[in-house]
Amino acid sequence: MTYCVAMSLDEGMLFASDSRTNAGLDHVSSFCKMTVFEQTGQGVLVLLNSGNLATTQQVVSRLKAHAKHTDKPLTEMDSVFSVAELLGKHLRAVVNRTEEESMGQTDVDFSATFLLGGQLRGEEPRLFLVYPQGNFIETTADTAFFQIGESKYGKPILDRVVQPALPLYEAVKCALVSFDSTIKSNLSVGLPIDLALVRRDQFAVAMRHRIDADDAYFRQLRTDWSQGLRRVFNELPEPGWLR
Amino acid sequence: MTYCVAMSLDEGMLFASDSRTNAGLDHVSSFCKMTVFEQTGQGVLVLLNSGNLATTQQVVSRLKAHAKHTDKPLTEMDSVFSVAELLGKHLRAVVNRTEEESMGQTDVDFSATFLLGGQLRGEEPRLFLVYPQGNFIETTADTAFFQIGESKYGKPILDRVVQPALPLYEAVKCALVSFDSTIKSNLSVGLPIDLALVRRDQFAVAMRHRIDADDAYFRQLRTDWSQGLRRVFNELPEPGWLR
Repeated sequence: MTYCVAMSLDEGMLFASDSRTNAGLDHVSSFCKMTVFEQTGQGVLVLLNSGNLATTQQVVSRLKAHAKHTDKPLTEMDSVFSVAELLGKHLRAVVNRTEEESMGQTDVDFSATFLLGGQLRGEEPRLFLVYPQGNFIETTADTAFFQIGESKYGKPILDRVVQPALPLYEAVKCALVSFDSTIKSNLSVGLPIDLALVRRDQFAVAMRHRIDADDAYFRQLRTDWSQGLRRVFNELPEPGWLR
Repeated sequence: MTYCVAMSLDEGMLFASDSRTNAGLDHVSSFCKMTVFEQTGQGVLVLLNSGNLATTQQVVSRLKAHAKHTDKPLTEMDSVFSVAELLGKHLRAVVNRTEEESMGQTDVDFSATFLLGGQLRGEEPRLFLVYPQGNFIETTADTAFFQIGESKYGKPILDRVVQPALPLYEAVKCALVSFDSTIKSNLSVGLPIDLALVRRDQFAVAMRHRIDADDAYFRQLRTDWSQGLRRVFNELPEPGWLR
């Protein structure tokens, strides 16, 4: 499995993805699930993927080929919406073709889901979730984040904390706490975590950072969060009706 | 959906279940998912169920009919293991028969999963998870709790806190925090929550309590937990590499 989260906030956008892929428990590898298209001053797009690795790699290759073929980088398209449409079209095509070619002779799931966010010159920052069927949804002020992959373990902290006014540095903390809960409860999500920040109107990636098992900050955060939770838990009132 | 959790601890056992059932989003009802078989001084069994409501009700009816037919209450069987076997047999039979009768003409999922715990005279307390296929697993010192239904949102706090030495009153707090996270992130799990405690060697239910929306203690616990999480989150260190 996979875990990816992206947020669209007033200050900009945060993207985070784990890097574990597995076909069964005994075939575990590490693949970066984040793809960045960047043209400084013109536009920046960040793509996170979950699902079938062959499908996602083929879709990303097709997007790159499309840009080369039309001689127009994705960052020069008229809107992130148009890029989402293009992504959806290729995703549907790849999934359909792979399924047809397998002729129903396998129970492999060829589907994949993408998060696509960024900002192109002339537009506000936008964040989309693209489904395996090729359709997609966009964040709003009410729902400022999307998750794909193994999303349930890490959702409660996002539900509590994420809203558009959240500063980006808090968003990083929140995303890492969400990953901590997920990694703690699910073997199929693992380090390293790839992080990228895009600040509003900078049309470039403001920061990329890879968090591995030796990352001192993440280790500290995990310890502090765990001890803090324990403290809050211990201070919770006892039920009066229990004794 | 449903959310149920049960723990087998040194002091005794805790059982908790929500009471929301739904067939689609517009057909939501409230049903107690906890069944207690009690014979004071002889034995106590608590059953929690998730999955198809018709299946679970039929299985419980069959267990009661079996006891009546053999003139032997479940609490007089030789072990909780034997009750789990009987439960698994009836569960498999009900699911198989319903599936056969529907002749594959529906995509309704007739399966169900049970938690069965308790203590019978002459035995230690035991807790089982019974699968739709009728087979089952038992808690050990390494894994002192089971969940069924919508289990992922509420698993992180259990992973952090539950171990056999946990006192029962802490177990209640922990279960309710787990329910709070689940209810906050998933519409299909809802109040009231049914709670039951079984203390070791008492061979009776030590406490039953139903928590509804007006429950002052649960409201306080949710507020304190939410504010505490916020406080711990705010105190987490900032990443040095962000600025």
